[in-house]
Amino acid sequence: MRREITGYSNPTVKYLRSLREKKHRKAAGEFLAEGLRLLTDARESGYLPELLVMAKTREAHTLLDVLEAEVLRSGGEVIETTPDILSKITGKSNPQAVTGVFKEFDTSLDVIDRDAAPIWMVAESLRDPGNLGTMLRTCDAVGAGGLILIDDCADPFSAEAVRASMGAVFTQNIARASWDEFLPWLRSGAGQLVAASLRDAVPYRGAAYASPCFVLVGNESQGLPEGYEAECDLRVTMPMRGRADSLNASVAGAVLAYEVLAALEK
Amino acid sequence: MRREITGYSNPTVKYLRSLREKKHRKAAGEFLAEGLRLLTDARESGYLPELLVMAKTREAHTLLDVLEAEVLRSGGEVIETTPDILSKITGKSNPQAVTGVFKEFDTSLDVIDRDAAPIWMVAESLRDPGNLGTMLRTCDAVGAGGLILIDDCADPFSAEAVRASMGAVFTQNIARASWDEFLPWLRSGAGQLVAASLRDAVPYRGAAYASPCFVLVGNESQGLPEGYEAECDLRVTMPMRGRADSLNASVAGAVLAYEVLAALEK
Repeated sequence: MRREITGYSNPTVKYLRSLREKKHRKAAGEFLAEGLRLLTDARESGYLPELLVMAKTREAHTLLDVLEAEVLRSGGEVIETTPDILSKITGKSNPQAVTGVFKEFDTSLDVIDRDAAPIWMVAESLRDPGNLGTMLRTCDAVGAGGLILIDDCADPFSAEAVRASMGAVFTQNIARASWDEFLPWLRSGAGQLVAASLRDAVPYRGAAYASPCFVLVGNESQGLPEGYEAECDLRVTMPMRGRADSLNASVAGAVLAYEVLAALEK
Repeated sequence: MRREITGYSNPTVKYLRSLREKKHRKAAGEFLAEGLRLLTDARESGYLPELLVMAKTREAHTLLDVLEAEVLRSGGEVIETTPDILSKITGKSNPQAVTGVFKEFDTSLDVIDRDAAPIWMVAESLRDPGNLGTMLRTCDAVGAGGLILIDDCADPFSAEAVRASMGAVFTQNIARASWDEFLPWLRSGAGQLVAASLRDAVPYRGAAYASPCFVLVGNESQGLPEGYEAECDLRVTMPMRGRADSLNASVAGAVLAYEVLAALEK
């Protein structure tokens, strides 16, 4: 179906705007992804938006035509509107000329098939959606199977996380669990839990990584709780040659994940 | 000097607020750093704020007492104000209870003593202040000497960059230059320019890194201009096992810088 929206007070506009807030995303089970590049990544990964919203002033683009046709063919809805209304929906003064509404994915631990990939990333109480999206992007790059979000993490379906993931939100499995759910699940099968740590740790280079390797990263300001570190099969240290004793969480995860990748592919 | 400010329209409040904008920072040659942790990092690195602004409702803290005493001893000013006015200055609804005003540093290439460190990071048109701050933090961690910002980069003295640097803005040398200034400067002495690239590149692991090594990272969406890549002494590739062909800029820089560190320390 195809229609045009010209009024700010249209209920669809209100609904789309509401998806910028976590509670409304949660209630609706839907999220927004902005921009043709992200929407094309989604399509190529097998995901079409339920609803495609385009500015009437958009420039023509073959990929957009393809997307539009496929959304209509799959029974989705295509909405044309003004750039101003699109700005109101995305909350950005210079919105990308197209936005899609997607159904949120299943994020239970059931989606994680640990034997499907040699590396999995695990984030504990990661609060910054940009860091979360960046970790998803890194997961894709190292050929990980997905990202497991432990305890109170940022929402992977927030606009900022989706944007920072550069499409990886559509290619990576994402699970959400408490530590008390995660640990028994992990121990119910093969899996090495590895964390960067200052306690009882070995150098991260040349450590005995094993597949499937679960790379655990802690909260941005607190790091990992001591009890969580104690449960790890391997604790590794990265060189810290300066004044600080830690890296940005998504950076630490990436440096470690690339080391694991190199070790497992040797 | 010590004084109290109670009115929103106080000229000092207006001045401090103005420092949230780049043009005003540039005109004033000053910037803000928020929070006791950051201010303590600054002090331990030899930098005291010209002006220290504290909420009257702050909790007592030994480090804050030390800071306050040193600011007063050095001829700086200490201002007490309400939490609301502090919020107005920082633009955050939940401001950290203390903010300092610092003089911007010299950011000419003259500040870079290439022989003082084995690694330097170089960012080209890096637009995201969070990425910039994260790169400064990584510089500190790998024992780099500093960050050289090429062409049109984000402002290293923005609140977001300062925050993301976790104090490294005070420990790392920062230079700003155009490519046409940087390249002749680089070639006027020893220095290996290395970039992650897809063109004519060798694997990043085991590549022949040499000190002083300048690790070059490109713009978030465009990457490096082809001509800049061509000038590099070494082009390396990182594994990309997924759909995407690039990493977050600060992540790519960190993975590469840690590889260089390991190679140079072997």
